[in-house]
Amino acid sequence: MEIVGFIAACLTTAAFLPQVYKTWKTKDVSSLSLPMLVMFFVGICLWLIYGVYKESPSMICANAITIVSAIMLIYFKLKYQKQ
Amino acid sequence: MEIVGFIAACLTTAAFLPQVYKTWKTKDVSSLSLPMLVMFFVGICLWLIYGVYKESPSMICANAITIVSAIMLIYFKLKYQKQ
Repeated sequence: MEIVGFIAACLTTAAFLPQVYKTWKTKDVSSLSLPMLVMFFVGICLWLIYGVYKESPSMICANAITIVSAIMLIYFKLKYQKQ
Repeated sequence: MEIVGFIAACLTTAAFLPQVYKTWKTKDVSSLSLPMLVMFFVGICLWLIYGVYKESPSMICANAITIVSAIMLIYFKLKYQKQ
């Protein structure tokens, strides 16, 4: 049954990568909202803690990778916002 | 500890609503990728199944709401794509 979690983790994590890539390439952060990104980042951190509590390898892996994506988007937003 | 999951659920679910609202208002689906939306939708469905298996109310609630958001985005994408 853990395999269902792993497939879910791969799919939802993969769905974020094109956004990160697109933002990195275009440097267009106009449609990204900083409060939303921060909210999302905090939410993912809490999911990670919850995943540790639930002893779920799928949740821990998925959220650890998504945290990196979220940090990159926040970094891009702050870096390119005024250009 | 379940409270951590619930706060995480609120934050990550809330982070999707502005995207749904924006797409609904602007009818601009040019930056949304259909394969990504479908991938994300399938991923969320699997997270829901996994949440039931893990007996996690937080995961079940969060993913049930996010499934609705994902369906709406896919619907908008198909509806407004050719206009």
